[in-house]
Amino acid sequence: MSTETPLLYERVARLVKTQIDSGALRARDRLPSVRSMSRTAGVSVSTVVQAYVHLEGAGLIEARPQSGFYVQAPSLQQLPEPRPRVRRSAKPRAVAAEVLDTCREAFQEPSIVQLHGAFTAPALYPNRRLNNLIREVLRDHPEHAGELIMPPGDKELRRQIAKRMAAAGAPTDPNDVVITGGTMDAITMALHVLCRAGDTVLVESPTYFGILQVMEHLGLRLVEVPNHPAHGIDVEAVRSVVRCTKLATAVLMPNCNNPTGSATSDDNKRELVSILSNAGVPVIEDDVYGDLYHSGGRPRSMRAFDDAGMVISCGSVSKTLALGYRIGWAVSPQFHMEIERAKFYSSVAAPTLQQRVLARYYASGGYDRYLRGVRREISANVHRFVDAVARHFPPGTRVARPAAGIVLWVELPTGVDGTELFRKALASRIGILPGAVFSPKAEYRNYIRLNCGLPWTPTIERAVEKLGRMVAASD
Amino acid sequence: MSTETPLLYERVARLVKTQIDSGALRARDRLPSVRSMSRTAGVSVSTVVQAYVHLEGAGLIEARPQSGFYVQAPSLQQLPEPRPRVRRSAKPRAVAAEVLDTCREAFQEPSIVQLHGAFTAPALYPNRRLNNLIREVLRDHPEHAGELIMPPGDKELRRQIAKRMAAAGAPTDPNDVVITGGTMDAITMALHVLCRAGDTVLVESPTYFGILQVMEHLGLRLVEVPNHPAHGIDVEAVRSVVRCTKLATAVLMPNCNNPTGSATSDDNKRELVSILSNAGVPVIEDDVYGDLYHSGGRPRSMRAFDDAGMVISCGSVSKTLALGYRIGWAVSPQFHMEIERAKFYSSVAAPTLQQRVLARYYASGGYDRYLRGVRREISANVHRFVDAVARHFPPGTRVARPAAGIVLWVELPTGVDGTELFRKALASRIGILPGAVFSPKAEYRNYIRLNCGLPWTPTIERAVEKLGRMVAASD
Repeated sequence: MSTETPLLYERVARLVKTQIDSGALRARDRLPSVRSMSRTAGVSVSTVVQAYVHLEGAGLIEARPQSGFYVQAPSLQQLPEPRPRVRRSAKPRAVAAEVLDTCREAFQEPSIVQLHGAFTAPALYPNRRLNNLIREVLRDHPEHAGELIMPPGDKELRRQIAKRMAAAGAPTDPNDVVITGGTMDAITMALHVLCRAGDTVLVESPTYFGILQVMEHLGLRLVEVPNHPAHGIDVEAVRSVVRCTKLATAVLMPNCNNPTGSATSDDNKRELVSILSNAGVPVIEDDVYGDLYHSGGRPRSMRAFDDAGMVISCGSVSKTLALGYRIGWAVSPQFHMEIERAKFYSSVAAPTLQQRVLARYYASGGYDRYLRGVRREISANVHRFVDAVARHFPPGTRVARPAAGIVLWVELPTGVDGTELFRKALASRIGILPGAVFSPKAEYRNYIRLNCGLPWTPTIERAVEKLGRMVAASD
Repeated sequence: MSTETPLLYERVARLVKTQIDSGALRARDRLPSVRSMSRTAGVSVSTVVQAYVHLEGAGLIEARPQSGFYVQAPSLQQLPEPRPRVRRSAKPRAVAAEVLDTCREAFQEPSIVQLHGAFTAPALYPNRRLNNLIREVLRDHPEHAGELIMPPGDKELRRQIAKRMAAAGAPTDPNDVVITGGTMDAITMALHVLCRAGDTVLVESPTYFGILQVMEHLGLRLVEVPNHPAHGIDVEAVRSVVRCTKLATAVLMPNCNNPTGSATSDDNKRELVSILSNAGVPVIEDDVYGDLYHSGGRPRSMRAFDDAGMVISCGSVSKTLALGYRIGWAVSPQFHMEIERAKFYSSVAAPTLQQRVLARYYASGGYDRYLRGVRREISANVHRFVDAVARHFPPGTRVARPAAGIVLWVELPTGVDGTELFRKALASRIGILPGAVFSPKAEYRNYIRLNCGLPWTPTIERAVEKLGRMVAASD
């Protein structure tokens, strides 16, 4: 480095900038790797790194962990990210039951643009293969209707999920896996096991409304820590809560938060597990979006840092493979037997057919290849949504840069009411979810969440445009 | 009547007795109808009734409601019915988690004689038709894996269940039906909606262990009223509890109790609904065995007497059609919306494929005809079990006469420990369920429950024989 002058890195930076300006490198294109650029430009690797960091600082490119550098999309330079909120509340309150009632209804209405859900388009699923596997299981188990697979669930499926956990950095004994009726079923069972009415539970703010509702009905108190749209769970806030509050558990979504889409770094996950374990607080990890990272490698489960066995990791196939199957899991060496019991007494078992079909699907290979395609599609969609919001929403709008998942968290200009917008949009056959449902005190009033799991179509583009006009009108 | 002497009815009675003694009429044969016997014997209808009532009093025949008179089986004359127990307990306690853990494991072990469950043999289900319907749904909805049917659930299935409710005496609006993941899922949701931790709930004694376990984990207190093996729920006990206890709800199994198999009469159901409604206590009816009555017509749901809309009726296809499907329902005009919400927040929805398949199955007709066959099979099995217990178990054994359902409640001689027997039997690859799991205080120690849903085979006969020897040995 000492032999090279600052001009060298400037030269490299200018080279890249020229390519961007000329259109040779376009928005979201991957830059040459540091090593390859070092060869091309005849400079050292560290000079290239210096150049790329400089360009990143200037907002022209962005680093994606374990993936490389990419040309920043223009819209991402225009729209700042939503601001995090810091709040604590003693008790969960009714969380917009009316809004969610309306959404459940709207969900069954094909004429409504389905931006209020959080799901991958059915057409993206490996339908043909799954349906062939169903036919196979019908042949091999013609009496499956009468066969109950008791908790913990199908042995082969548990083996396959243990393998997936290993890929998420957490080698797992299949006996520690309990099959459930989806991620929320797993989280509900875990809460049943870990909490009694009146207990206090730590959650993120904002957080998925289903978690708030289960807690409300189990009579749990909650304390919120901020989730930063840019970097996830606020570790220092967790540290300070743990210092002064007796917690029964913490429900966390490091990979990634719903609705913000933010990912929490490995270092912070390790730190969170350590803080909570040391305080004797078990963690319920909602990992439902873990397989839907947009770039880089599969983020690690908190179980990867869980030497004390204090993390219950919950996931499902609902976002990746088969929303309609209602199959999920809870993974925990320490609590699996109690979760198994809870599953048995509250709803006996998960459906037999789907367990067998998924076991065969995973065992037969190809899931990772399939997932790559889906992730690419979703990631592209998210970018299209961000672009469209940037084009059509009024100034003062902020938008998240989700690292994973299928939803987009949008902060509307101050004063615009998301729940009002929800009602107006629905009257125009557009479904959105108001931010208020993601908070026990109906905060995030000027936020909305949009589903980016659907293929981009002119209908959706028009819907986003129309939403933008509605926001501008109520601004 | 005034023109006929008492000798006339005696003559008819003697005629029947001779036929029984000669073997012309055998155990469980149906007697000629009153009208036909009146013609045959040339006496009035009321004389025949007098004769039959006399024979019933002598223990030679038995009346089955809405079905007629049947020759009593000899074993039913030898073995008295189990005695009811009367207990109240302030709080549910851990209910033999260890026993149930062992049972869940044993359930997956084909080499174990499965008398510990409560299920119909898979071979009795309409498997071919159900599997053809699955293939049909795959063709019509190739993207079903990605399709979520939000609560309250599939519209056509709800319409069909409303029709079934009408057949149970309770005409129902399909909008009052919520599809769940089985009966226990429905009961759990109903408890979530009606109770908060610390509330008191009325249950029968004995009652299904799953109900006790959910209550324990929801932090509910319970008060028990006796279930009489012969005539069901003790109405007077309910009246006296209601007078002195504030109840959040009552979980009742009038059609029929699990484990006793006893049915509660229509009059008593009406009275129970009236007592509880007047006290403002909603009722959760567990009607999972309602379609599996052994003789007569379909018993009425408590909803048939529910003018105030205080009854939530819960059922499923788990005992009749498809244990492995995990589909059930809760029916309530008053609470359906809250149950719908509870289903959504705790586990989102029931599986899409099974909802559609069952909707088609019911809609295409033939369920009643199919059910007649299954009921005949089960009823015959129950009789075979009663006979076998009578032959192989030592004196002091008592056995229930189930009016419905697929299980048999057996009281062992005083001093014989059902849980001990459970362990010994399992060591001999025979699964049974000890009575202690049906009580929050592990009462019914000298009781066991046997599954009669399996076709009668030499293996099962040998198992019952072996159980009898074990009981005799520990007596």
